[in-house]
Formats: sequence, structure tokens, C-alpha cells
Amino acid sequence: MAEITFDQVARARERIGEYIVDTPVFRSELLDNWLGRRFLFKAECLQRVGAFKARGACNAICRLVEEGRRPARIVAQSSGNHAQATAWASARFGLPATIVMPREVSSVKAQATAAYGATVEFMADRQASESRISELASRPGSHWVHPYDDADVIAGQGTVTLDALRSVGPVDLIAAPCGGGGLVGGGMLAARELAPSAEVVGVEPQGADDAAQSVAAGRIVSLARSPDTVADGVRTLSVGQLNLPLLRQLAGIEVVPDSAICYWTQWLSHLLKLHLEPTAALGMAGAVQRLRGRESGQRVLVVLSGGNCDARTTQRVWSTDHLETVPQKA
Amino acid sequence: MAEITFDQVARARERIGEYIVDTPVFRSELLDNWLGRRFLFKAECLQRVGAFKARGACNAICRLVEEGRRPARIVAQSSGNHAQATAWASARFGLPATIVMPREVSSVKAQATAAYGATVEFMADRQASESRISELASRPGSHWVHPYDDADVIAGQGTVTLDALRSVGPVDLIAAPCGGGGLVGGGMLAARELAPSAEVVGVEPQGADDAAQSVAAGRIVSLARSPDTVADGVRTLSVGQLNLPLLRQLAGIEVVPDSAICYWTQWLSHLLKLHLEPTAALGMAGAVQRLRGRESGQRVLVVLSGGNCDARTTQRVWSTDHLETVPQKA
Repeated sequence: MAEITFDQVARARERIGEYIVDTPVFRSELLDNWLGRRFLFKAECLQRVGAFKARGACNAICRLVEEGRRPARIVAQSSGNHAQATAWASARFGLPATIVMPREVSSVKAQATAAYGATVEFMADRQASESRISELASRPGSHWVHPYDDADVIAGQGTVTLDALRSVGPVDLIAAPCGGGGLVGGGMLAARELAPSAEVVGVEPQGADDAAQSVAAGRIVSLARSPDTVADGVRTLSVGQLNLPLLRQLAGIEVVPDSAICYWTQWLSHLLKLHLEPTAALGMAGAVQRLRGRESGQRVLVVLSGGNCDARTTQRVWSTDHLETVPQKA
Repeated sequence: MAEITFDQVARARERIGEYIVDTPVFRSELLDNWLGRRFLFKAECLQRVGAFKARGACNAICRLVEEGRRPARIVAQSSGNHAQATAWASARFGLPATIVMPREVSSVKAQATAAYGATVEFMADRQASESRISELASRPGSHWVHPYDDADVIAGQGTVTLDALRSVGPVDLIAAPCGGGGLVGGGMLAARELAPSAEVVGVEPQGADDAAQSVAAGRIVSLARSPDTVADGVRTLSVGQLNLPLLRQLAGIEVVPDSAICYWTQWLSHLLKLHLEPTAALGMAGAVQRLRGRESGQRVLVVLSGGNCDARTTQRVWSTDHLETVPQKA
């Protein structure tokens, strides 16, 4: 299993450049004054399909097409942003797609996936989904785009950090959510090249800290069941085989409580005027936790991973009023 | 009382150009496909202080400074975005400001106003606020920036539509919220010059339809009390003396229910990934109502007025799940 390199990230960027959005970097002077640091927010909620996942799926599918390995059908399994990303990227290259989703997925996500022209198959539960995707993937002519344990997907997600660093220059800290590990793992490769002295950290919710456990153990540790966190983008049970070696090279994994995730979803929505899913606030919650007690002045790149959020999750995020408590340096 | 002209809007744009943001215009292909029209959303939530109000306050204060009429103190009264706008613009030109706010204003808005360096005075109720602002305004050296009944403020708000039309070209319909009438009245002046065949409509919530009543009566009709609408940016009791002649030249005033305001706040947040206050959804609710039953194909400019929303209002907007009901052509 060859280790993934920066070159793959750079090539991914060239490959997907014309299809994806080079999303803007947002700032808040008020926030910087309160916290004594400069925060740079990479707004992947403004990416195609509303999340960074468009990059990885686009890179995987574009590479197949580029190399003349045009499959008869793209298949994927996801309850979240990877479903929409794969449906969108398949349509972009004129390939039919079948997306397997658990039946309890929100209708908003199912609608969006279908709106990109994919066939959506609903399964009773996670186990049924997994056996169905195995079956679909084994059919001749099918190509399975895995949400994170795929070198082309990881390289694609790494372009978030690549684009951000090319735009803002060197930083001291980079923080991004960690589910399967593609975003922060691929980002670490970009950072090592463009901001070699930056600390790169992945961030997980409490109760979903399988990446932290896996890095500590040096092997993949799986969660026993889907964790009950408001950050529904990182409910994966384990990181990928390809991701673990990358995660072991991070400066660390921060584990944050759901209250901090809701706090920062509210405050970043309020200050930046972006509609964020709670997973997108993990980076900020982790950065603030990591910097606690340190001196001021750092430049911090925070990846806002996406903005796809159903009404129930939005209600959960806003059920407590966190805007009464102004952020302050700790 | 001289009527306000397009030239004043054009001059306002030159005056405030270096201080304000030429905010981007957002689109959603999915929405356009569903509704059979092309919608162009002017994102004033990304304006300084998170609302278009920055333009009018900046124009009024900048003009004083430019003409050498530098007051000793700027004063204003507001429970909303005009408070922050006046505080910001005063600070920008190094002028001290006193902002009078009702005591029940959300702490988020009071915080932001104070964060721009203004002195905030809290009053028990609306009546107390009004007598206090009259008193402050009558002091020697004070200059009162009225939220809407002021030619420079109206001309400043008109630059929203001016910028948008310069960026997107001619459109068939322009829809914007109508509180005091500055945004849509000033916008009408810009539209008459840059998109003379466009219908321009103001939009009000049911129960706060004083502009519609005033246009129908040909004189200012005031609401008896502050209306209970989720669109807290348009709770003004009456339009301005300077605004009424402009509003009478509109193609119409659309009056929409709060359910439509919540519906479009949810859907525009979801599709555009912007954090919007419910007042910002009035334009879309009004445009959709206006176009009901008409043929397809129009280009529609919708002004998203701002994104300053406290947690209680956000909870109210999201208390019913509107994302289950996909927008469709009616």
C-alpha cells in the first residue's frame, strides 16, 4: 500500500480545477480582536454541493475518465455529503450513478442526491447498506467511490488546504474535522509542503473519538455504534486504512464536546454570515481548545467543511442561546 | 421638500465606494430549475455590519465630513441594524456616537453596537427612546441620522440596487423588503435608470402592511402598535415623509404571511449557504407571490437585506421544518 504524497494532491488540483469552486477565505475582525489571533476560515460550505466532499469525488471520477477507464456505473454509499458529491461528479462526467442511503437519512439530503440525477436506493439500516454496496460494487463495469479510504478521494480533499494556503500564505495552526480522515490527512500533505512549520490537527466530537484512539493505539480502533453527536458529518465508525498513516503524522487530534460545537456553529454563523452544518464548527472548537493558555498572535487556518444541515439539526444547534456569551481569550 | 433623484444615488455610490463592500450576487441552479426563472440574490448580509444599513449611514456621515460640517456627536435611535450601521460609520470617520436603544433589544445587537465604540443608552420603551433621541438631537453640535426619513440615507440604500444592476445587467423584477421605505425607494431610483422596464416591488409582512395602506391611501398610515412578525427588521410603525412619494412609484407592494418568510429563510439559507435574518427573505417571498401564475423565464433580482439574527429569532424561524416541502412553480 503506497503512501499518498503531496504530488497526488497537486495533480488532483490541476485535474479538478475547472469543475470546483476556489472558495473564498472569510475573516472576522471582531473575533480576531476578542481572541487575540488571526483566524482564516476556508468556506467549503460554498463549494459545489455545499461541502468539500465535491473535491474528492470529482478527483476520483475525473481521473477514471482522463485515463480512459470510463465505468458503466458509479456506485457509492453515504448518508451525507459524499452522496451528493458523488451524484454531482458522476453527472458532471455523464456517468450514471447509484447511491445507497440508509432509510432514516433526511429527505433534504435524499432530494439533493436525486436532483443531481442519481438513482437513490434506500436501505433499512447500516448493515443492509453495506451488503448492498458490496453487491453493487462487484458487478462488472461498476466503480465504487469510497467516501475516504481511497487515494484519489484523499488527494482531492487535500486540495482544500492546498487552495487555502496558496491564498493566505503560511499559518501557524491548521484545524479541520476528522471523520474518515481524508480532509485532515490530505490537508496535512499540502501543509507539509506549503506551511511546513504549521501544526495540523484533526478534530473529533466526544463519543466519536475513534481517530484519537486509533492514533494512540497505532491501529484502527472502531466505535461499537454510530455516535450520538450533533456533528453528523463525522459519525463514521472508523478511519480508513489509507488514512491512519497520515493521521499519525498530525500534531494531534483534539476531542471537543457537543456544547463547543453548537457554540461555534452559532458564533461563526453570526459573525461570518455563513450557513454552516455543525461539523463545520469542529475546526474552530478544536483550534480554540488547542491554543488555550498559549500566547497571542498566531495565524490559524480553520476549514469550514460544509453547510448541509436539515431543520432538525439546525433546531438542535440553536436550542440553547450561545450568542449571549461572547468569545474571549482563554 | 425636493424629490430625491438618481443622481443622489450615483453620487452616494462614489462617496461610499471605498468604505463599503460590493457584495456578491448569489445564484442557485437548483432553485432556478424548480421555479423556471433566474433568481439573482444580492447578498447584503455580507455587507459591513451584516446589513445594507451600512450604506445609508455611511453616506449620511461621509457627506457631512466631506462638506466640512463635522458634528461634535452623531446620534441615532434604533433597535436593529441601523444602530450598528451608525456606530460603525461614526467610528470610521472618527466621530463619537450615541445610540439610543429600547431596553428589550437583544444583547447580541447591543454588544455589536458597543463593539464599534458607540455609547449605548438603553430606554424603557419606545416612547422613552423617542423623547430621548429628540433631546439628544437638539443639543448643539449633534447630528441625528434618521434610519430612513433622510435623503442621504435613502440615496445610500439605493446603492444596493445600483451595484446589483451594474453587476447583473437588466432584470424583469426587483423585490426588496419595505420597512421605512429607504431600501426599496432608493432602489426604485436606481432601477428606473439602469433597468427601466423592471417592475420594482416592496414586500411587507401581514400585520405590518402600513406601506401598502399608505400607498393605497396616498398619505402615511401608521400602525397602532409594533407588529408581531418574525421579520423584525420591518417593524417600523410608518414609512417616512421622504419615502412615500418614492413608494407611490413602485409597481406594487406585496404583503406576505410569516409562514412564507420562514419558508424562504430556511430554503435560501439551505441553497445559498448564507446566514440570513428573516427580513432578508421578504424579497423572495414577495417575488414568488408576484410571479404566481405568470409565464416562466423572468430574471429576478432579490435583495437579501441582512444576516443579523439572535438565537430566539433563529429558533422561531426553524421551529417548523419547511425543507420537507420543495419549492415549485406556481
